[in-house]
Amino acid sequence: MITLASDFGSPYPAAMKGVILARLGDDAPRLVDVAHDLPRQDVRAAAFWLREVLPWFPPAVHLVVVDPGVGTDRAALVVRAGDHALVGPDNGVLVPAARVLARGSEVEVFEVAVDDPASHTFHGRDVFAPTAAAVHEAGVGRLHDLTDLAPVEEYVDLAFPEPTVGDGEASGEVLVVDGFGNAITNLPGSVLDGHYGGSVEVNGADAPVRRSYAMADRGARLVTVGSHGNVELAVNRGRGDEAFGVEPGSAVRLGW
Amino acid sequence: MITLASDFGSPYPAAMKGVILARLGDDAPRLVDVAHDLPRQDVRAAAFWLREVLPWFPPAVHLVVVDPGVGTDRAALVVRAGDHALVGPDNGVLVPAARVLARGSEVEVFEVAVDDPASHTFHGRDVFAPTAAAVHEAGVGRLHDLTDLAPVEEYVDLAFPEPTVGDGEASGEVLVVDGFGNAITNLPGSVLDGHYGGSVEVNGADAPVRRSYAMADRGARLVTVGSHGNVELAVNRGRGDEAFGVEPGSAVRLGW
Amino acid sequence: MITLASDFGSPYPAAMKGVILARLGDDAPRLVDVAHDLPRQDVRAAAFWLREVLPWFPPAVHLVVVDPGVGTDRAALVVRAGDHALVGPDNGVLVPAARVLARGSEVEVFEVAVDDPASHTFHGRDVFAPTAAAVHEAGVGRLHDLTDLAPVEEYVDLAFPEPTVGDGEASGEVLVVDGFGNAITNLPGSVLDGHYGGSVEVNGADAPVRRSYAMADRGARLVTVGSHGNVELAVNRGRGDEAFGVEPGSAVRLGW
Repeated sequence: MITLASDFGSPYPAAMKGVILARLGDDAPRLVDVAHDLPRQDVRAAAFWLREVLPWFPPAVHLVVVDPGVGTDRAALVVRAGDHALVGPDNGVLVPAARVLARGSEVEVFEVAVDDPASHTFHGRDVFAPTAAAVHEAGVGRLHDLTDLAPVEEYVDLAFPEPTVGDGEASGEVLVVDGFGNAITNLPGSVLDGHYGGSVEVNGADAPVRRSYAMADRGARLVTVGSHGNVELAVNRGRGDEAFGVEPGSAVRLGW
Repeated sequence: MITLASDFGSPYPAAMKGVILARLGDDAPRLVDVAHDLPRQDVRAAAFWLREVLPWFPPAVHLVVVDPGVGTDRAALVVRAGDHALVGPDNGVLVPAARVLARGSEVEVFEVAVDDPASHTFHGRDVFAPTAAAVHEAGVGRLHDLTDLAPVEEYVDLAFPEPTVGDGEASGEVLVVDGFGNAITNLPGSVLDGHYGGSVEVNGADAPVRRSYAMADRGARLVTVGSHGNVELAVNRGRGDEAFGVEPGSAVRLGW
Repeated sequence: MITLASDFGSPYPAAMKGVILARLGDDAPRLVDVAHDLPRQDVRAAAFWLREVLPWFPPAVHLVVVDPGVGTDRAALVVRAGDHALVGPDNGVLVPAARVLARGSEVEVFEVAVDDPASHTFHGRDVFAPTAAAVHEAGVGRLHDLTDLAPVEEYVDLAFPEPTVGDGEASGEVLVVDGFGNAITNLPGSVLDGHYGGSVEVNGADAPVRRSYAMADRGARLVTVGSHGNVELAVNRGRGDEAFGVEPGSAVRLGW
């Protein structure tokens, strides 16, 4: 199985699929789209979503192209993480998902030898898709056999900001906003334990704490734990980002 | 085959796919996206689109998650409709499609025993996707063998508003607006018989009746029958909703 | 393999997939979405994108529905181009891709006998999807065996405007704008040879010429060659169309 994720919108992902299907012919595996509307050129947001979504998949090759540095000298990487492999640019986007997929084992990182690709502007098609096909063909356990891959020790890391959790308060920030308008923070859901049915202060104003959206009145603000386990600022059948006045990067201070 | 429909946008549907693929392994069937941009949390609009689209599919398990009540005590359902099964929340969204898919046979409705899902906010991933996988694995004809399913007699029904068709006039409303801006009403297309090439009154103003969009002048309003068999308010290469000043729920009165 | 492309948005493409899957049953091939958000009813833009994307695919049947004339007497076509077949309306949308896919051989064009389709407004579902299924079932090399297909000599052609390349200047226009805001022109990339690292005049104002986006300052304008080989007006991590004040059809004059 090969999954595909990008910020390409459409129709560029189809060119990547065509390349994979042409290379692998009758042996081409299932192709599964993860998302092609990841926030454009936002490496951190993409890394967050991939860390949340990819671990639900069985062993696969994950092709990831959020690549604002395409055509510069940033490296192309293959990362082995347990039974999974990730293929994408060396800008950190692969790292958080790889750490979860490795499930405690070490990740192995390889640099791809890139030899005069057909374009400087679409390495998704000209570098990463052919590499994903080659990795799938070889098998995740045989990356050392691929002569175009060289193990590397150095690569761009990416970490999400750490929240501060104190006595009666917690400070963090909004990592991403989903399509419903839910503002997903870096605060661990556990800070809401004991407050369900009550309320907490969010940036100085009270907000009810609920197990799910529809437990607040329609159109009302709430604080909950999202499916990723983080604190989420939401509105029942509305947009939490607007109601709380936040966007990705906004500071969030909870008090109770 | 498992089809997937939701109002999730992206990337949440990929997590549902990952769950199904991980559960079913090499036996995982074809996965087909119906739509993931159904109008957000609009159960009636989703029910309409599913009723129009799902009957074109061969026998399948249809996973449907438009679920504003996620995390409340609304039940999770499996509905058997002929050779098809539908899996989703008990809010009516499955019902109109199930009635068509049953092709005259009775639908059978089962409640899913939900045992402490991983989240309160994403039952698509934590309840409905695993259920769809289990239903596919068992087979649509063996739902009584699944110990997590219990037949129920009571469930939330959903009916579209009935139009009034009289002598020289018909009254109804706009059910949904599609991406082209076509305003799809609940009026049966048969009310336009005998008027093609002529005109009818729509909310008091004349509009030409045409077999298809391009039979009106470019940019001009028209009334036609859409592919679902209902009266549609449209503009050739433009947006009917704007030209007729309507949105979902707007009253539409035709006179001739 | 059958690929699908349209300007339908959602959920109409799923009805086309259902029709194909129901017709072909267990023999149904891989279905691959090329794009369903091609610019609405813009035949030229669709033709451009298909010409860029389809040639990356292995032999396939390509179902293409950008069809502002649906329900009029425009013909339905099957075009054989080498090992590929294209199915869609006779409005030119298939032609540029077919010429590339034919790789130097002649294209063969067939008209589909359309016999009272279920709707006048959705031939994607009622005419083109069943035809694509029939073509796939017969095989691209056996189109002459299909009794619903008749060879034709006359069909709607479509050509992109030709640029003028002179001594020290080149004139053309913007063909399409992609989702990143890159304005893709009809000017051949070769006109930038010798200018990389320097600049050219674009409609009277200087702009740097770079091999890729990130070689310009963040937020800065640049001129580059896109993955299609044409001159592209872009902004590093921004929208080229806005920065250069252009849209599809805008004249672009380069000087150096």
